[in-house]
Amino acid sequence: MSLSPESNNLCDIGFIGLGVMGKNLALNLADNGYKIAAFDLEHQKIEEAIAQDKTESGTGGRIIGCSSYTELLAKLSVPHLIILSIPAGHIIDDVCHKLIDAGIKADDIIVDMGNSLWTDTVRREKEYEGQFFFFSTAVSGGEVGARFGPSLMPSGDRYAWARIEPVWHAIAAKVDPDTGRAIERFEPGNPVKIGDPCATYIGPGGAGHYVKMVHNGIEYADMQLICEAYHVMREGLAMSPQEIGEVFSQWNEGVLESYLIEISAEVLKQEDSESGQPLVDIILDKAGQKGTGLWTAVSSLEIGSPAPTIAQAVYARSLSTLKDDRVTASKLLQGPKLNHALKQDKQSVIQCLHDALYCAKICAYAQGFQLMQMASDEHGWSLDFANIAKIWRAGCIIRAAFLQSITDAYSRNENLHNLLLDPFFIEQINIHQANWRQAIANATLLGIPCGAFSSAIAYYDSYRCETLPANLLQAQRDFFGAHTFERVDQPSGKKFHVEWASKDRPIVTA
Amino acid sequence: MSLSPESNNLCDIGFIGLGVMGKNLALNLADNGYKIAAFDLEHQKIEEAIAQDKTESGTGGRIIGCSSYTELLAKLSVPHLIILSIPAGHIIDDVCHKLIDAGIKADDIIVDMGNSLWTDTVRREKEYEGQFFFFSTAVSGGEVGARFGPSLMPSGDRYAWARIEPVWHAIAAKVDPDTGRAIERFEPGNPVKIGDPCATYIGPGGAGHYVKMVHNGIEYADMQLICEAYHVMREGLAMSPQEIGEVFSQWNEGVLESYLIEISAEVLKQEDSESGQPLVDIILDKAGQKGTGLWTAVSSLEIGSPAPTIAQAVYARSLSTLKDDRVTASKLLQGPKLNHALKQDKQSVIQCLHDALYCAKICAYAQGFQLMQMASDEHGWSLDFANIAKIWRAGCIIRAAFLQSITDAYSRNENLHNLLLDPFFIEQINIHQANWRQAIANATLLGIPCGAFSSAIAYYDSYRCETLPANLLQAQRDFFGAHTFERVDQPSGKKFHVEWASKDRPIVTA
Repeated sequence: MSLSPESNNLCDIGFIGLGVMGKNLALNLADNGYKIAAFDLEHQKIEEAIAQDKTESGTGGRIIGCSSYTELLAKLSVPHLIILSIPAGHIIDDVCHKLIDAGIKADDIIVDMGNSLWTDTVRREKEYEGQFFFFSTAVSGGEVGARFGPSLMPSGDRYAWARIEPVWHAIAAKVDPDTGRAIERFEPGNPVKIGDPCATYIGPGGAGHYVKMVHNGIEYADMQLICEAYHVMREGLAMSPQEIGEVFSQWNEGVLESYLIEISAEVLKQEDSESGQPLVDIILDKAGQKGTGLWTAVSSLEIGSPAPTIAQAVYARSLSTLKDDRVTASKLLQGPKLNHALKQDKQSVIQCLHDALYCAKICAYAQGFQLMQMASDEHGWSLDFANIAKIWRAGCIIRAAFLQSITDAYSRNENLHNLLLDPFFIEQINIHQANWRQAIANATLLGIPCGAFSSAIAYYDSYRCETLPANLLQAQRDFFGAHTFERVDQPSGKKFHVEWASKDRPIVTA
Repeated sequence: MSLSPESNNLCDIGFIGLGVMGKNLALNLADNGYKIAAFDLEHQKIEEAIAQDKTESGTGGRIIGCSSYTELLAKLSVPHLIILSIPAGHIIDDVCHKLIDAGIKADDIIVDMGNSLWTDTVRREKEYEGQFFFFSTAVSGGEVGARFGPSLMPSGDRYAWARIEPVWHAIAAKVDPDTGRAIERFEPGNPVKIGDPCATYIGPGGAGHYVKMVHNGIEYADMQLICEAYHVMREGLAMSPQEIGEVFSQWNEGVLESYLIEISAEVLKQEDSESGQPLVDIILDKAGQKGTGLWTAVSSLEIGSPAPTIAQAVYARSLSTLKDDRVTASKLLQGPKLNHALKQDKQSVIQCLHDALYCAKICAYAQGFQLMQMASDEHGWSLDFANIAKIWRAGCIIRAAFLQSITDAYSRNENLHNLLLDPFFIEQINIHQANWRQAIANATLLGIPCGAFSSAIAYYDSYRCETLPANLLQAQRDFFGAHTFERVDQPSGKKFHVEWASKDRPIVTA
């Protein structure tokens, strides 16, 4: 396959940046018949990619090395299509300027496939207009996704998209259209060709990176919820990692079926080869983060779209890094005695955790989708949420049977304000909420932290609350700051202020 | 009193911006003997300030109006001291440039007393260096505080501070040094002169605005916690606003004694003059916000200092604004039946709420102070937390007996890592935590949102947790993204990666 069949000696795609993600994306492209001209500032990485191509294909030659930007352009068919898989930040601009110097033209396309901050992508699209098409495609799926089929979130100019679309459809993860489930086949040289590709045009400018950012925010929440369920089983029920892994394996057969539950089960069953102990007990409990989760939380705060479960997951990671403080605090701060343990039987405690995880997960996704909705309205992106949920059904880290239900919800009603208002999710939470509440009560009374579970229920209970105590809050604000309030019996937007009478506090009216 | 006694016909201080806060600060300065030259783009506001000065002082003449920046400078003794009480944003720079044009000199001082974003203050201090001293002073206390004694958080050049300090000490709120309590006297012309002034030099650049920002973040949390206690009494115990106001009045006699509890009691007892109903029931439950709370949450996310209770309070306000959605949702989403009500007796439920409010409040302050600590370390501000707590004992919105306990904690140990590690607070939480947990379990089982209460207990229980489930999370991250992890049995910083074996998933090693 070639993008420009008339120039057979030339490569189809230029690829810059051959780290773990880049190399795997390049090999994925090669598996799908595209000939790659590759460049990396570390020449060693180019050689590794070429070597792996040779091992996997037998013959090699699908990836050609280049030693400069000029050589890269010379080896490509025109108009050029160049993919960047390099770190976010100014280096993206550095490379774009180098490519301009090397002779890139207005009809060429440069695709940023890194984890850029979406506002940088918006800026770049404008900045390079007329010099070349700056297009972006956020990638989810980790290294295995990149190699055998990621979820792709492209955004930018529609003309550029028309040229890129067949390539993206080829390399993306595929979903069985009948079952809505990922078609998994991890074979070099033999990619999955048939099925719904997990690549859909997201929108203009930074829309794709924004959607990927929210995907990661949801991923943070998903992971933290799983950790909280694990923690209660571990501390509240004194279960072994192996036993908890078995529970997760069972959960993976039902409504919680997902990649993250599946790998959690595998992780918990893993033994440390050195010590023979469960590996999880050997791993230091300090979680890293790369920024996308916190960007999601920051965006939700700035845009005014509540996402407490995502923020809670980010804070849980920050708290985990305060290891020294926690070790000190664990000796000084007391909690309830864990031996006045859980009164319910073990199976019912586990069922409560299952239901809590399910309901809280629905809320985390509701928060993420509402955030995307508000961002879409603010930036005029016209995001299509049924399609976004569709491309998350396979390839990406949060892939799950569950995403089909979200696709269905937005297909039923494309103007759905919040996932919680969809009949399917209304019913699901209704069935499981008593156990969800019990799980939080259990953990709280036992002294086991469950901030993500409880932030989700506060979200749910606030969202279904016709009258929140924000009326008292507005009264407080009017009292001390003359901030005024609206009245329930007067038209919206009309402001009132009370001359709060108090014997020793003279009143100044706004 | 005059800053420059030799020039008796000249004014001591130039004052720009005579909105609610500005006018009251100007009158406060006048009460303390300073002669004010006042300017506002709306001439009407100057006249109002002059009229109020005349009414209050009998004679007037303490505030003189000016009709241009040039006239303002001409009416001031040199070197000039000019206060800005104008909205945050570019208007600050506009006015600075107008004053430069009008002839301001290197030895003059301009003080920004608005709610600027701290990073703007840092930028401005540098930008105007050599042209004049750009000094900032964050003000808390609302309109009454501004008039009769606010809490002042000055920062900037130390030479400028030496000149301003006596003025700030004069107009600030005062604390009785023996009791640690605010000295309250709200009399025009007769300001409180004796006591510890709530004004202390905070640090260089934007430190003062940063500290004020965190003050407001804590204030958001404090207000939301009060609202949650109110909500449970209202919905869970079917108490009237009047009854709940009585409870708050009682609480104001104990450890919760504070301005916010006091005004909440007053608000809840207030009747609407039009309808005769409790006023709080007439106020629309949509809370406004002006940005400082969300800036605090954003900063905590960016700096990696967990502040979930502050973020939760910001999200609660966002949720409150989704009124239309909530009205719809309230008809569709179900919760537990409120009539299977609380099993404990009413007094014990109220006691649980009291203790929950107290413990959660300690956690919210711990979050705020830890955030300031991390910011101080990052920016080299060397913040003095005992002094910061001291100037919050009076004048500001979060003023409370409680702040004396924080001052004491940091006086005992100026390197205290977290308030939760201070012996006094360890004991307080220990005494009250069982009720705190019960209050959360009660509200959660009843379906009444209590996100701030529960975010605080998740913070407490995570902070005292030697091993968090972040070990599982790191294993997940290593599984899907080769992000590596550290081992508990190996030196810090050494990274490990597992070749996760799985029959259908080939392994790519980082």
